[in-house]
Amino acid sequence: MRAVVLLSGGLDSATALAVARARGFECFSLSFDYGQRHRAELAAAGGIAEALGVAGHLELVVPVGELGGSALTDPAIAVPKERGNGIPVTYVPARNTVFLALGLALAEVRRADAIFVGVNAVDYSGYPDCRPEFIAAFQELARVATRQGVEGNPVAIEAPLIELSKAQIIQMGCELGVDYSLTVSCYQADEHGAACGRCDSCRLRRAGFAAAGVADPTRYRRV
Amino acid sequence: MRAVVLLSGGLDSATALAVARARGFECFSLSFDYGQRHRAELAAAGGIAEALGVAGHLELVVPVGELGGSALTDPAIAVPKERGNGIPVTYVPARNTVFLALGLALAEVRRADAIFVGVNAVDYSGYPDCRPEFIAAFQELARVATRQGVEGNPVAIEAPLIELSKAQIIQMGCELGVDYSLTVSCYQADEHGAACGRCDSCRLRRAGFAAAGVADPTRYRRV
Repeated sequence: MRAVVLLSGGLDSATALAVARARGFECFSLSFDYGQRHRAELAAAGGIAEALGVAGHLELVVPVGELGGSALTDPAIAVPKERGNGIPVTYVPARNTVFLALGLALAEVRRADAIFVGVNAVDYSGYPDCRPEFIAAFQELARVATRQGVEGNPVAIEAPLIELSKAQIIQMGCELGVDYSLTVSCYQADEHGAACGRCDSCRLRRAGFAAAGVADPTRYRRV
Repeated sequence: MRAVVLLSGGLDSATALAVARARGFECFSLSFDYGQRHRAELAAAGGIAEALGVAGHLELVVPVGELGGSALTDPAIAVPKERGNGIPVTYVPARNTVFLALGLALAEVRRADAIFVGVNAVDYSGYPDCRPEFIAAFQELARVATRQGVEGNPVAIEAPLIELSKAQIIQMGCELGVDYSLTVSCYQADEHGAACGRCDSCRLRRAGFAAAGVADPTRYRRV
């Protein structure tokens, strides 16, 4: 069995990769350079892929950032320190749709049986493309859009973390041997991967380690 | 009303753009450099966009070709001269899924009401991502994947040519004033856009003009 695993370099997707490995999949990890501010993620993704023994790791340059419209790709929009109401400005338009579409392309070429994605509805309820209905809709799309689907063997879209809390994700990853010191979650990590400790993503991550009763291995920079 | 129009430089998408304009949409055309062999398409797309008066034209580099798996992007796979059974080797894995996903991202940023795509199920029945069920599945995905969808105003996925024959498409385009001499359909057009006259796409196009009773404006090269 083969799987394509979308690997951002963050905590969630590293855990999703560990789950895929534990289920016996030969894994091909896929990372995206989409003009994100937090570029240390990409280096982290390569380190995680190596540590978790993937069969292949691929990094693609994707022109999502050129379109603008998000604090994560547009320097003119500030990354907020606190969570507001509604969809956050850190939402990148159609990002997970684009990433899963490219994952689907790789899955067709590699004849993979599954695509693993570390989306999580609990902590990211403000992002439309992190919800179970999004995964279900993409599953149906994968069925009708591809050669494998037409041949009666559609690729499965696996989102094993979608209903878990951050603490549950961390506990699961620790049981599977994930080294979270390799992961970078901060929206504005520095070039060495050191986290700000203040952005939404840092807060969720820090609270997750605390709730899981696991020592936080994150390197925070002095700010 | 605003629309994003996927514009390949070929005959079908030029007609889709003309339809969108005729329906009163302010159009933003979007072309993709995906490592295709027939690069003259991209220059053609720019010319068509200008001739049909778009509000903006954007060309994105998309790493579909790096994944391989198609005669259109992999020099090791020959472009066939005749149509075989099943899905042709010119099928590019998940291409329309990737293109529509990026169109969806642009539609969110531009707050567009619709995405027009020139897919056609009649002449391309071998491509899974040219079928009505693919468009319907993407429509549902667009509803759940985006900010606009969550807010109750999902972008409409418009495929106005999907049930038309090539001859019907050409007749419709001629009524809307499309200059088909600007379009390039050939899978192996030369750098000046001159067509081979032999590939699957050339055959369909030539037969379409004949059936429509319209003089074929295509420049064929001597081969």
